[in-house]
Amino acid sequence: MMQHGGNIYKYAKELDCEPGEIIDFSSNINCYAPDMQIDCSSRLVTKYADSNYPELKSAIARNYKTASENIALYNGATAAIYALLASLKGKEVTLYAPLYGEYEKAALAAKKDIYKINRIEDIDTEVAKKSIVVFVNPATPEGSFYDLEELFLLWKKKKCTIIVDESFIEFEKHKSLKNQIDDYKKLYIIQSFTKFYACAGVRIGAVFSHKKNIRSLHTPLWNISSFDALFLKQRLEDAAFKEASHTTHKEQKEQLQTILKESGLFDTIVASEANFILTQSSHATQLFEHLLAHKILVRSCESFDYLDNSWLRFAVKDNAAQEKLKKALDAFA
Amino acid sequence: MMQHGGNIYKYAKELDCEPGEIIDFSSNINCYAPDMQIDCSSRLVTKYADSNYPELKSAIARNYKTASENIALYNGATAAIYALLASLKGKEVTLYAPLYGEYEKAALAAKKDIYKINRIEDIDTEVAKKSIVVFVNPATPEGSFYDLEELFLLWKKKKCTIIVDESFIEFEKHKSLKNQIDDYKKLYIIQSFTKFYACAGVRIGAVFSHKKNIRSLHTPLWNISSFDALFLKQRLEDAAFKEASHTTHKEQKEQLQTILKESGLFDTIVASEANFILTQSSHATQLFEHLLAHKILVRSCESFDYLDNSWLRFAVKDNAAQEKLKKALDAFA
Repeated sequence: MMQHGGNIYKYAKELDCEPGEIIDFSSNINCYAPDMQIDCSSRLVTKYADSNYPELKSAIARNYKTASENIALYNGATAAIYALLASLKGKEVTLYAPLYGEYEKAALAAKKDIYKINRIEDIDTEVAKKSIVVFVNPATPEGSFYDLEELFLLWKKKKCTIIVDESFIEFEKHKSLKNQIDDYKKLYIIQSFTKFYACAGVRIGAVFSHKKNIRSLHTPLWNISSFDALFLKQRLEDAAFKEASHTTHKEQKEQLQTILKESGLFDTIVASEANFILTQSSHATQLFEHLLAHKILVRSCESFDYLDNSWLRFAVKDNAAQEKLKKALDAFA
Repeated sequence: MMQHGGNIYKYAKELDCEPGEIIDFSSNINCYAPDMQIDCSSRLVTKYADSNYPELKSAIARNYKTASENIALYNGATAAIYALLASLKGKEVTLYAPLYGEYEKAALAAKKDIYKINRIEDIDTEVAKKSIVVFVNPATPEGSFYDLEELFLLWKKKKCTIIVDESFIEFEKHKSLKNQIDDYKKLYIIQSFTKFYACAGVRIGAVFSHKKNIRSLHTPLWNISSFDALFLKQRLEDAAFKEASHTTHKEQKEQLQTILKESGLFDTIVASEANFILTQSSHATQLFEHLLAHKILVRSCESFDYLDNSWLRFAVKDNAAQEKLKKALDAFA
């Protein structure tokens, strides 16, 4: 069962080819990934970094219009998820499913009791008082963006601890809940920087919360690579990157939607407000194998709650990759 | 109280100077740190790495004459320590103290019961059956290297789980216990790569153990920066680096010993087999402040068991840094 996208290495072995030959529609990395010159001299890493990473935090704070004191940094968003769930005292975790699979694993590792709400069919299911609620917005695996205003009021009324994962929020400039962290002191926003900023090999993720919460998180000493900190700071400060990303994303998503639709192979194509498109097809398993034979890897979604292997997800990719997808889909008989 | 070396940032604020102006004798990084050209194009990080990091593991395996299957990689040795202690089932941890402070914190975080053996005064203190024993060799904070053969036999007889931290073993080519991991299945070796390989800003540490143990460790997905993996692989494969390191280390350690001895300021200078020298002085607190006024930071050792602030530790540094130390010591009246 495919638990994560991006494992081109496993499939390259199967196909007996180089990982770089596989076109990876399975990992949701921004398709606009311009080359960037960074001065990563080996001198940069001789000394210990300031374990508080003040320059990177300032750049993140400016980018998201918050303060450095509201930010905790981790070795990737997944590390942030595990650390946050381990540190929260509540026993009950309510997951709005389907969602990114590491939340359930992290809740289990933290010995929490897990409750699931099917956000697609029964989003208004009542939440227990003081539960820790987890919502990914835009949601995985389909990319719906939810207006959380009403739910947020209900959660607050029940004194819930709220975790909202906004790792995909920047692709379509949706409204973040980060501006609420000073008002509601039990709100935590999780953010991966690797998706929108096109750097999966850079391991930096954040928790945004009230500064008192951040202080009590006790992030591990020196958990960020100095190279990674420099890279992310530089990319965050590149305004042209953001503009070009939004334009490219919009164009390429439309192209991908058209390709999927015109192929006639899918019973369902879910409208997305993120950089991936979820589909359902009665031929999904054959399609997965067919595309793989064309060295195209897609995300099979049977690891998500309420979904099965008839669901395939395609990340928005660049023009060349999507043209190859089109040809491969056309060749499916 | 100084818990760690390397925090030039805090002291730069105190002195109102740039962190780079401070000469850091407090962090034990190899003083031989040649510039190295690495091709860290931003393209390297666009894709997810193979989360098993096979190329880096092969390089490490070759370097330490073991197999890739015997290696688990973490975001720094400290992350390795926390993960290992959290995963081990035994309830009792016996720390051979004084030692690197994160072992006690990690054992507490893993809710273990902690027992300490004063390895300097009572190294033969009996260990409880099936205890998890932790020994740092060469030891911190003073750099003694212990022949562990006898203790190892005793520990095995008592079916102990054995953790030996060899983060400083390469400076003087001491004999590693890594060749025992296939024979004794409850042996774990911890290794930081940042000390000898002169890359504190690179976050990679390892656990070496029997492959069955390694499989059950479940290392976090993508916990290593792609830039860091490339840097360390390249440095591990640089044989000239190792040779020059050993020569430089030997020369500079002798010079440091001479400077400390000839200053006449120390009651004790402990013989070291690592890249740092522990001293005791009745003037230690004044010396610390005096050196800091000269923008020289040393490690005050009151955070170590059985030591107090009369103990100061000096890392072996390059010629220029040690000449400045000599002048500053000469100016102490």
